[in-house]
Amino acid sequence: MIEVPRTQFLLSEEDVPTHWYNILADLEFPVPQEHKARLDTVSGTEEARLMAQIPLSMYRQSISLERFIEIPEPVRDEYRRWRPTPLYRAYRLEQLLDTPARIYYKYEGSSPAGSHKLNTALAQVYYYQKAGIRHLTTGTGAGQWGSALAMACQSFGLRCTVYMVRLSYAQKPYRRILMTLSDAEVISSPSERTRIGREMLCQHPDTDSSLAIANAEAIEHARTTEKCRFSIGSGENHVLLHQTVIGEEALHQMELTGDFPDVVISCMGAGSNFAGLAFPFYREKTRHGDMRLIAVEPEACPKMTRGRYTWDYNDFSGITPMTKMYTLGHTFISPGIHAGGLRYHGAAPIVSAMYHHGLIEAVAYPQRAVFEAGIAFAQSEKFVPAPESAHAIRCAIDEALRAREEGRSMVILFNVSGHGLMDLAAYESYLSGQMGDCVVADEQIAQSLARIPAEGE
Amino acid sequence: MIEVPRTQFLLSEEDVPTHWYNILADLEFPVPQEHKARLDTVSGTEEARLMAQIPLSMYRQSISLERFIEIPEPVRDEYRRWRPTPLYRAYRLEQLLDTPARIYYKYEGSSPAGSHKLNTALAQVYYYQKAGIRHLTTGTGAGQWGSALAMACQSFGLRCTVYMVRLSYAQKPYRRILMTLSDAEVISSPSERTRIGREMLCQHPDTDSSLAIANAEAIEHARTTEKCRFSIGSGENHVLLHQTVIGEEALHQMELTGDFPDVVISCMGAGSNFAGLAFPFYREKTRHGDMRLIAVEPEACPKMTRGRYTWDYNDFSGITPMTKMYTLGHTFISPGIHAGGLRYHGAAPIVSAMYHHGLIEAVAYPQRAVFEAGIAFAQSEKFVPAPESAHAIRCAIDEALRAREEGRSMVILFNVSGHGLMDLAAYESYLSGQMGDCVVADEQIAQSLARIPAEGE
Repeated sequence: MIEVPRTQFLLSEEDVPTHWYNILADLEFPVPQEHKARLDTVSGTEEARLMAQIPLSMYRQSISLERFIEIPEPVRDEYRRWRPTPLYRAYRLEQLLDTPARIYYKYEGSSPAGSHKLNTALAQVYYYQKAGIRHLTTGTGAGQWGSALAMACQSFGLRCTVYMVRLSYAQKPYRRILMTLSDAEVISSPSERTRIGREMLCQHPDTDSSLAIANAEAIEHARTTEKCRFSIGSGENHVLLHQTVIGEEALHQMELTGDFPDVVISCMGAGSNFAGLAFPFYREKTRHGDMRLIAVEPEACPKMTRGRYTWDYNDFSGITPMTKMYTLGHTFISPGIHAGGLRYHGAAPIVSAMYHHGLIEAVAYPQRAVFEAGIAFAQSEKFVPAPESAHAIRCAIDEALRAREEGRSMVILFNVSGHGLMDLAAYESYLSGQMGDCVVADEQIAQSLARIPAEGE
Repeated sequence: MIEVPRTQFLLSEEDVPTHWYNILADLEFPVPQEHKARLDTVSGTEEARLMAQIPLSMYRQSISLERFIEIPEPVRDEYRRWRPTPLYRAYRLEQLLDTPARIYYKYEGSSPAGSHKLNTALAQVYYYQKAGIRHLTTGTGAGQWGSALAMACQSFGLRCTVYMVRLSYAQKPYRRILMTLSDAEVISSPSERTRIGREMLCQHPDTDSSLAIANAEAIEHARTTEKCRFSIGSGENHVLLHQTVIGEEALHQMELTGDFPDVVISCMGAGSNFAGLAFPFYREKTRHGDMRLIAVEPEACPKMTRGRYTWDYNDFSGITPMTKMYTLGHTFISPGIHAGGLRYHGAAPIVSAMYHHGLIEAVAYPQRAVFEAGIAFAQSEKFVPAPESAHAIRCAIDEALRAREEGRSMVILFNVSGHGLMDLAAYESYLSGQMGDCVVADEQIAQSLARIPAEGE
């Protein structure tokens, strides 16, 4: 008889969290932010508010010091389509690694959009709709954010235009079609549709492009279109807030396991998936004095491990207000790794500040080590992870192997932020030996850092 | 405030059924079957048994008259990776259709293989492994069966070789890669690897091929390889049996809803997905005297609605024993519809006999009506259904619209046998107006029926 521990930790739809967790209430230092365009709107007219980037409701969330912020019922109702997501004991991965560690993972791949991105997309679209906006634009890397926003826009009846990074547009046609199925307009970026796109095509016709460029195009589109706004899928305080449903559920589910994590691991693009899982555990850190929170980034875009903590723009062309963050420079263009969602040059202000104050750790991996881990996970746990999520898996495996070497028990929790069913061409590239490690050179980072405007410092 | 009914009906891993349901115990007529090669083995030596197509354990299941057959613990353990699958109230689809019908669907797309096929793949591989087999071959249409068998083989340590219908091999590269990720060997069929493949390539070099041809190649491969057997993903009694976990769970979940279905709908390839959902409801038919069971097939392969109930081969070349079934003839080649899993020429013997005795209904739809329904479902319920499953959705929508016309309440249950995330190119083909209806002509069916050997009649 095989003895198998319980492997599924499921909640019911009644257990969808009623509140998001706002970590700003619990940080003992201020998070530097500069949102000039937005600050104006707080005291402004209704018209001024509507012209601003985000609705007042979301702006208030982004500066609130309330610990818990209620989730509007129409958003919770949408969450109940697929949330709470499962938490699994990675029992077969433990066996494969022959580790004394107990490994758990939260699985956001069961979302209809295939990733965690729908958590904030639905909230944002709800608030934009309430504010009278009829049309949203955005940029998307791997297409996970774009498909989530497209679905959310359809749920609340808004138009949606997505600028998709050229490399992903070519590599991931299925995600493009998924957006089209939600009636979104999908445009390969850089495009002829915007001034910044045309300039880019002229100066760098063969660029792989980047999320910063796609976002710049989407911002320009929104600025020149009526009742239209630019929506962003990561980085901003309110985005991190919306993702905390992941960690709130995971806290509840870890209670069912009887374990509490020694280490909490997520991949790191701009930081919303990391924040979503890690922040609620940070709040409960007194339950475990030595708990570690690890953000995992690609060596192709090592903003935390090799970037600088400074003021910088969020987009390629410098349209956006500057924020203080770990950055490789807003003109940095990451090598074309398959984890398109991690190719963003900067880290969220809150995550950056926490890293700066030593509250979290960061680690970077080359691409092939990441795919090796993704395949080990797929072959043992059977769910194919997104290349982004495979970064967290690589780190979790290394922690588990260290536990084996040191002969000690430990509890590992990581987030599988999305499934990799639309990234199978990337896995084939790895299996056929075509894939490179995509480690970025010091000189490229130095050059890009040098282009950060001095007035931001 | 929006009032939303409960939409998720989840069970816990303790609720994975302990037994499969064997409908042969409850049918009041014999199901004609002719398994000469297998009957020999019951009284044969151990060696003879190993040489036969299926292990004695599975053969006994296929002729058993026991009502319930225990699921081996290692198979249940594998089921617990993702089972029980969710049952959802299709509340948004109801709203879209403005119907008084209450619509529920069982969602098998949450399986790591993306469809219901893993239910029997794991059971079969377990029994083959116990019987000393080290290598399985199979044919696959859309790749759903192939990827399920590949995953199951990896779980139990068997080699796996999949002959994939050429059309799907080209249309669905992601499913091919998914099989490769499970270390399976995937071969486009017809191939140069087998005698039947070479003949086919010679006579019909441009054929779209069919599952019957791929199966014929896989059978030849198994017959010429040591400790190797051919495994089949649908049609056989034991396969239908293994799929009844779907309906057993759905019965349990429908109790949680407080409703009992007036109509139970599944798409129909050879019949295992239909049987899996419908058979347990058939057993409980006394709870609802007028409950209808509907099998939905494509107009491109209308074996039930336009085929003949007779003895025929299961494979293109006539290697397999003949079985009595609704068939379009074993040489029938269906037009290249995107629902590759429904392109099989025959229906399972049990399903055929039940249809012959008037216990179930069948309906056929042209391809575009099916995709229209799939998109309505994706846009309202958000999960993109496999083209196969969209057949069931088409029928469910039509039942719901009829309920609206007639102003009567009714309860509809259907099966979403798999997700369509690897079939998005098909959706794009529909959206771009490139898709045809693929209704097969009477003459083609007549010609194919004429090639059924007379001695079978």
